[in-house]
Amino acid sequence: MTTTPISLDEIYSIAKKTLINNGCDNLNAEAVSKTVTYAERDGSVSHGLFRIPGYVAALRSKKVKGNSKPTKKNLTQNAIQIDGDYGFAPMAIQIGIPELVKVTKNHGVGVLTIKNTHHFAALWHETEALAENELIGIACTAYMPSVAPAGAIKPLFGTNPISFAWPRKNKTPVVYDMATASMAMGEVQVAARDGHKVPFGTGLNKDGKETDNPSEIANGGVLLPFGGYKGSAIALMVELLSAGLVGDLFSFEAKEADNKDGGPARGGEFIMAFSPQLIAGDNWNDHSEKFFEQMTSLEGVRLPGQRRHNNRKDTGPRNINTKLLETINSLK
Amino acid sequence: MTTTPISLDEIYSIAKKTLINNGCDNLNAEAVSKTVTYAERDGSVSHGLFRIPGYVAALRSKKVKGNSKPTKKNLTQNAIQIDGDYGFAPMAIQIGIPELVKVTKNHGVGVLTIKNTHHFAALWHETEALAENELIGIACTAYMPSVAPAGAIKPLFGTNPISFAWPRKNKTPVVYDMATASMAMGEVQVAARDGHKVPFGTGLNKDGKETDNPSEIANGGVLLPFGGYKGSAIALMVELLSAGLVGDLFSFEAKEADNKDGGPARGGEFIMAFSPQLIAGDNWNDHSEKFFEQMTSLEGVRLPGQRRHNNRKDTGPRNINTKLLETINSLK
Repeated sequence: MTTTPISLDEIYSIAKKTLINNGCDNLNAEAVSKTVTYAERDGSVSHGLFRIPGYVAALRSKKVKGNSKPTKKNLTQNAIQIDGDYGFAPMAIQIGIPELVKVTKNHGVGVLTIKNTHHFAALWHETEALAENELIGIACTAYMPSVAPAGAIKPLFGTNPISFAWPRKNKTPVVYDMATASMAMGEVQVAARDGHKVPFGTGLNKDGKETDNPSEIANGGVLLPFGGYKGSAIALMVELLSAGLVGDLFSFEAKEADNKDGGPARGGEFIMAFSPQLIAGDNWNDHSEKFFEQMTSLEGVRLPGQRRHNNRKDTGPRNINTKLLETINSLK
Repeated sequence: MTTTPISLDEIYSIAKKTLINNGCDNLNAEAVSKTVTYAERDGSVSHGLFRIPGYVAALRSKKVKGNSKPTKKNLTQNAIQIDGDYGFAPMAIQIGIPELVKVTKNHGVGVLTIKNTHHFAALWHETEALAENELIGIACTAYMPSVAPAGAIKPLFGTNPISFAWPRKNKTPVVYDMATASMAMGEVQVAARDGHKVPFGTGLNKDGKETDNPSEIANGGVLLPFGGYKGSAIALMVELLSAGLVGDLFSFEAKEADNKDGGPARGGEFIMAFSPQLIAGDNWNDHSEKFFEQMTSLEGVRLPGQRRHNNRKDTGPRNINTKLLETINSLK
C-alpha cells in the first residue's frame, strides 16, 4: 500500500473542505472532521479519512442533512435527549456531552439519548470525553443487521459496538470500544483476500454451518456475535438500549429505512454516565488505582485504551493511503 | 442421583428453619429463603438449596451477620446506597429495590449500590423485579478471583456475572443473568469427572497453556473470560462498576478479606434502572415488541428468561438431591 504523510492539521482541513464542498455547513463539517482527525491521530484508521467517501455519499444522496440543527430536550432532570435533525452523529454528540456532564456532576448519574442521526464514528470519543471529566461513560449503538443471534442463521443484530471508559486522576482513562460482532465484515474480507483462516465462531456459511473459511462467510454467509450465546446476550442489550430505550430504529428497521448509498444508516445512540465521586466517594481514585496496579502486574495484560493514547503522543504526520487521498480529492 | 420430591412451600420452610437454627433472625432468614425457593422454582438449582450449607458455614464462622440491619443512604436524589451491615445480600436487596423503583419512576434513571454484603444468589431476582415494575434493570457483582484477564495466566476477575432485564407489558420480561467467566468452575469439574472435553478458550492449565482437558483447568489451572479479550473487557467493566463505583471490595480484595469458610465472600453489587416510559416515550412497548417478533421469527432463537418462566408454571414439588437434603437436615 502506497501512503502519503499528512499532518493532523491537514487531515482536518481535507476532511472539512470535502464535507463543505458536498453540502455540510461549517458547524457540521467541523464536528465530523474532528472525529475523523482524532481517529487518525489515535491510529483508528478505519474511523478516519476512510469514512469520508461514505459521509459524502450520504450528503449527495440527501439521506443526511449537512446543515443539521440538533435540538435538546430534557426528558427528566437526569435524562437528556438530543434530536440530531437527521445529520451526522458527531454534531449531536458534541452538543449533548457537555449537558450530560452537567447533569451527572449534579446528580451522580445521567442519561443521554441521541436520535435521528447517522452514525459512522467510533464511540470512544464520547465515553473518553466523559472520563476526562472524571465521569464513567458507557455508550452503545445499533447498526445495520449483519450478525445472527446465537442459534440463528440469519442476521438481526448490527455490529452493535459498546464503549466503556473509566476515569483516572492525572492519567489517561481506561477506555474500550468494541463491536459485539466476532469480527468486522471488513476484517473477514481481508482474511479472505489474504488466504487466512478465521476462528470457528466468527461466522456461518450460506447454509448456516460454522466455517473457518472467511470467503464462505463474506459470500452469502453471516457474522456471529463474539463469545457465542453470551456475546449474543450483550448484543441484544445493545440493540434494546440504543433503539428500544432511545426510541430510534432497531438494526432491522435501519436497513428498511436506508437508501443503500454506502453512507451511515440512520439510528440512535445510548450514553450513560456516573460520577464515582458522588457514588463511591472520595476514595474512588485510590481504590481503582489499586485494582489497576494488580491488573498491570500480570504479565501479558494491557489496560484498554493505552495503545491509542500512546499513538497520540506522536504529533507528526500520519501515513495515509494514497489511493484513498486521490478518491477524497476527486469528491469536489 | 437419588432425589426426593419437595413442595416449594417445604423448600422455603427447610431453608428458613435451617438459617434460623444457625443464627439468622426472622427477616434475614426470610429474605434468603425466598431467593433460594425462587431459584428452585425456576430450575436454577445451583442457586437453590445447594447454597444452604455455604450460608450456614458463613453464619457459624461469624463471617456473616444473621441479624443484619441494612441502612439506606441517599447518595444523591438518584443514587441510593444500601449498607448491608455484613449480612446476606438478599436482605439488603429487598430493601433497596423498592427505593430504586421509586427513584427511577420519578427521574427516568436510578442507581442502587449495595455494599457490605455477602453475595451468593443469582442476580435475575433483582433485575426481574425491576422489569416487573416496567423498568429496565442491569445488575452486576464481582466475586472471588478465578478468571484470568485475556492475555494473563493468573486469576484476577471473579466470575463477575451481569444480569439484564427488559420489561414487556402483559408478558414475562426478557431476562438474562450470566457469568462473564467462560464457564463455572463447578461445570469444569463435572466435565472432568465425566471424562468430557471442554472447548478451547474455557481455561488454561497450570503452565498457562490453553487446554480442552477440564481436569488440567480444575487442578492448578485458571478459567478464562467468555469470548476472549472482548469478554475480558466486559468482566473488567463488571469489576469496576461493582467494586470501584460501589466502593466495595474488588475480587482480589474479597479474597484477602475472606476466611475461607466456604460461604459467600464479602462484596458489593451495582444495580441501575431506566424507565422506558420516561425515556423512550409511550411507544416503547409496541416498538420493542416488533423487535422481539423479528427475533423469535428466526429459527433456533429463544428469548432469554423464557425457560425459567416456563419452569415457574409448574407449581408442583421439585426433585431435590436426597444427599443434599440429608446434609441440610444435619445442619441443626
